[in-house]
Amino acid sequence: MDKPKHHIFVCSSSRLTGEIKGFCAQNEGLEILENFVEEVQDRELDGEVMVTNTGCLGLCSMGPVVMIYPDTIWYGKVTADDVEEIMDALEEGEVVERLAL
Amino acid sequence: MDKPKHHIFVCSSSRLTGEIKGFCAQNEGLEILENFVEEVQDRELDGEVMVTNTGCLGLCSMGPVVMIYPDTIWYGKVTADDVEEIMDALEEGEVVERLAL
Repeated sequence: MDKPKHHIFVCSSSRLTGEIKGFCAQNEGLEILENFVEEVQDRELDGEVMVTNTGCLGLCSMGPVVMIYPDTIWYGKVTADDVEEIMDALEEGEVVERLAL
Repeated sequence: MDKPKHHIFVCSSSRLTGEIKGFCAQNEGLEILENFVEEVQDRELDGEVMVTNTGCLGLCSMGPVVMIYPDTIWYGKVTADDVEEIMDALEEGEVVERLAL
């Protein structure tokens, strides 16, 4: 089946127990996720870029964390305001160095 | 920073709202996740293989879904019993064709 060119994983500290807590969820994790979904729609990249929320990625001290595969680009201390810049870089095949882990 | 050689994402239908529902969560999604974590520990692959739960991957009709990056191997209709075979294949650089999407 067709797979996206880029798959963006956003830590939202989604718990298996259903609790809504955790560092990334409390620090714009959900807003970051929403912004990625909106940016993908606005740029008409559906199909090409997929966005998924995740449970804890184990890098809480560097959170909120965003991972992009198969590029294997990891970003830390991301804010909701960084999403546009991350998407710009992704489209240009570049990395936002100041956020890269 | 050091990144894992393989990152396994297991759909557990983790909801942002905290609800525990969804196709994969109801169909061994959590057991599949647990089995991956155990297999990684048993094979002493910590650091090399990372396992993360995700929210809905949008492929519910093919769930439970497992995705492995940066390999970009997608598996569908996975059962808890399939995990050992998937890990065997991963270690051998192979794909379990009967489950591949």
